[in-house]
Amino acid sequence: MKEDPYLSYLFRPRSIAVIGASKTPGKMGYEVLTNIVKYGFQGPIFPVNPKYNEIHDIRCYRTVLDITDDIDLAILVSPIERIPKILGELEAKGVKVAVIISGKRRDLSSLPIAEYARKYDIRILGPSSMGIFHARSKLNATLGPPSVREGSIGLVTESRTLGMALMGLAKMEGIGLSTVVGLGDKLDINESDILSFLMRDRSTRSIIMHLESIRDPNSLINVLKSSISSKPVVILSSASDVREKLKDLNEYVPIVCDIMQALDAALALAGKRIKGNRVLVVTNSGGAGKLIAGLSNQTKIEFPHPSEDLMDQVRQFVPEGGICSANPIDITGRAGTDIYRGVLDASLSSDDFDGILAIYCETALSDPLRLADMFSELWELYEKPIIPVIMGGERSKEAVLQLRLKGIPAYFSPCRAMRSIDFLVKISPFSSV
Amino acid sequence: MKEDPYLSYLFRPRSIAVIGASKTPGKMGYEVLTNIVKYGFQGPIFPVNPKYNEIHDIRCYRTVLDITDDIDLAILVSPIERIPKILGELEAKGVKVAVIISGKRRDLSSLPIAEYARKYDIRILGPSSMGIFHARSKLNATLGPPSVREGSIGLVTESRTLGMALMGLAKMEGIGLSTVVGLGDKLDINESDILSFLMRDRSTRSIIMHLESIRDPNSLINVLKSSISSKPVVILSSASDVREKLKDLNEYVPIVCDIMQALDAALALAGKRIKGNRVLVVTNSGGAGKLIAGLSNQTKIEFPHPSEDLMDQVRQFVPEGGICSANPIDITGRAGTDIYRGVLDASLSSDDFDGILAIYCETALSDPLRLADMFSELWELYEKPIIPVIMGGERSKEAVLQLRLKGIPAYFSPCRAMRSIDFLVKISPFSSV
Repeated sequence: MKEDPYLSYLFRPRSIAVIGASKTPGKMGYEVLTNIVKYGFQGPIFPVNPKYNEIHDIRCYRTVLDITDDIDLAILVSPIERIPKILGELEAKGVKVAVIISGKRRDLSSLPIAEYARKYDIRILGPSSMGIFHARSKLNATLGPPSVREGSIGLVTESRTLGMALMGLAKMEGIGLSTVVGLGDKLDINESDILSFLMRDRSTRSIIMHLESIRDPNSLINVLKSSISSKPVVILSSASDVREKLKDLNEYVPIVCDIMQALDAALALAGKRIKGNRVLVVTNSGGAGKLIAGLSNQTKIEFPHPSEDLMDQVRQFVPEGGICSANPIDITGRAGTDIYRGVLDASLSSDDFDGILAIYCETALSDPLRLADMFSELWELYEKPIIPVIMGGERSKEAVLQLRLKGIPAYFSPCRAMRSIDFLVKISPFSSV
Repeated sequence: MKEDPYLSYLFRPRSIAVIGASKTPGKMGYEVLTNIVKYGFQGPIFPVNPKYNEIHDIRCYRTVLDITDDIDLAILVSPIERIPKILGELEAKGVKVAVIISGKRRDLSSLPIAEYARKYDIRILGPSSMGIFHARSKLNATLGPPSVREGSIGLVTESRTLGMALMGLAKMEGIGLSTVVGLGDKLDINESDILSFLMRDRSTRSIIMHLESIRDPNSLINVLKSSISSKPVVILSSASDVREKLKDLNEYVPIVCDIMQALDAALALAGKRIKGNRVLVVTNSGGAGKLIAGLSNQTKIEFPHPSEDLMDQVRQFVPEGGICSANPIDITGRAGTDIYRGVLDASLSSDDFDGILAIYCETALSDPLRLADMFSELWELYEKPIIPVIMGGERSKEAVLQLRLKGIPAYFSPCRAMRSIDFLVKISPFSSV
């Protein structure tokens, strides 16, 4: 697997030129420049547009050639017909990588981008890319929201508009991103190039990849095969061609059409591995626990009963009316943090199970945020994953978001947790723990 | 279908006694009394507990018999062993309906509640009921959150703790409730009694019913058969017995195990009916539109192409690079409110489709809240349903919540919308439009 040194300029540029920068809010040339500035890029920024002397109080240049400093990364938001000329100027400046944000999809394939890339010795992302985001480089050169929650999930998307919505949704869902790459039309840099790079990116622990097509199936399959052991990938696609080409990887590379499912799965996969498929459910609601049975159809998860030994340990904690001899263990609506803690400590220490699904329905008896702190301690303390589901109002939501901030896969409902644990179970045998 | 006049006291009491009321936060006797007071019940409230002279500045009585006024509804939170004596006192006071919130589930069936009900001429909800909420009566005698978003969805639940979480989740999801009924152990009043009543409740337009068992299958099937035409019911259950007993209604009464799916479906079913299964997708993101194909497997929804006539009308609005000859119609990421409006007006007026799924990915070009206002106008203007999906950050979320407040089934992701439209399509042929 070759690494393209040019791509390091894409993710870790020391300076950026924005060609076609604008002062008009709503225009792509305004949005991307504003994001770069607002997100706090540390190096020099060179807006280029002959109409302006400055934008956001930053000196604006007539052409690329007027910039005397070195340019590591060029972001192009100019009309597509000017792209060839600009690429020529970028060559003269020795720029190694360009992101073409401009362009309408589908009617652009006429532009011989790959040919330009060779001719001008430059690697090109796009056209119609949504841009590039890399948290560690303080780089948000995207059309998405200006503020992004930093985390460990990589997001790669062909679609510019869907990509913007995905960045917004990730933020709302408390899912932190390490990097975002807008593939666009993939006329030069393709899905495999980006994936190879992200496989080495230490800030990225799992990847969501939205694909409508595959430029280079053999290369993609090779990258995936050599990497799913260390960095799981969830494909977001409903293209039958994508499914067909990746069908041999079916078991280890989930392909989903549901955006939320992709986010949920990536969250779980960025956390801990699970060593087997035996999951114990601990719940303060027998009713919520029973729904799990219906949700476990078509998953690989198994729910064996606790051993006599574990039952004996757990019994002391379970209030009257609860159940400790089955799976789910029902600790009743009267369970507070201490009861959860006692039962979970015993269960996480036992060899009976590979992971725990801890369900909490918000009651007046225990505070979701205190419970979240306890879950977080257990996550640090034990090797086995504990997956919390915290259901209720404002404080429950806040508890889930706080856990997610720490990289713990917490969920708002049992269904979303179950689907994610299933991916974890399927992928984990092939992963280093 | 007989209506039980006693039940009207349950939903529309003029006065309430809370027996076992408490001053200790976290205790059920405190929580339920506090909710009744905070939610603003208009009639007299009589806390009963020999330990106190007052609670929340309301006079507290030693026993039920010390109350001189009439009591329409008695809420019992006393220890279960005192229940028989209290029921005797309630008979002496002529009380017609009691909600027993106390009790641990499963170990209570020993108490001959049905026998007491006959003996004391009283109808009993519970034991281990989560209580009763009825928005129009300003009645929140539940263990759930004190503030509830008022709306048109009825929530019936066997599980006390799950019920509390469901009320919290409904609030977070912007789903307004008309009524909440905690069935508990259903030892007297059962699922069919409540459903019969709700079928006549004008504030309720659709119902979520969490069931772990069915007390009276014939009766339930009769109520469902006679009512699904006017008031759809979604069953939340993973009990095979429930599925088995309702299997003949399979097509018209969805049974789901996913809590969010139940909320989503109830929201759609509380809105407009759809006259057929032909749905047009209009999207500002081709990428998001394409995912619909993968989500439509296993649904009854069809996505025919627009007619030549409709295409001609729509073409003038669709920006360059968009697609108006297919389904989804792709109006591109540059589409603002006016372009949406033009395309949607034409599509809603056309006979080609029975409903519209309008997908919006948040961009810097158009404000989600302005778009939501426009969707809301179209909802009022046309008979056909338009189902908005608004995806993005904070403002997108706010837009969805605002639409939901108006009873419009708007969603945060295409998958959640699709599953809900599928229920709408399946149920609508049996419904009055």
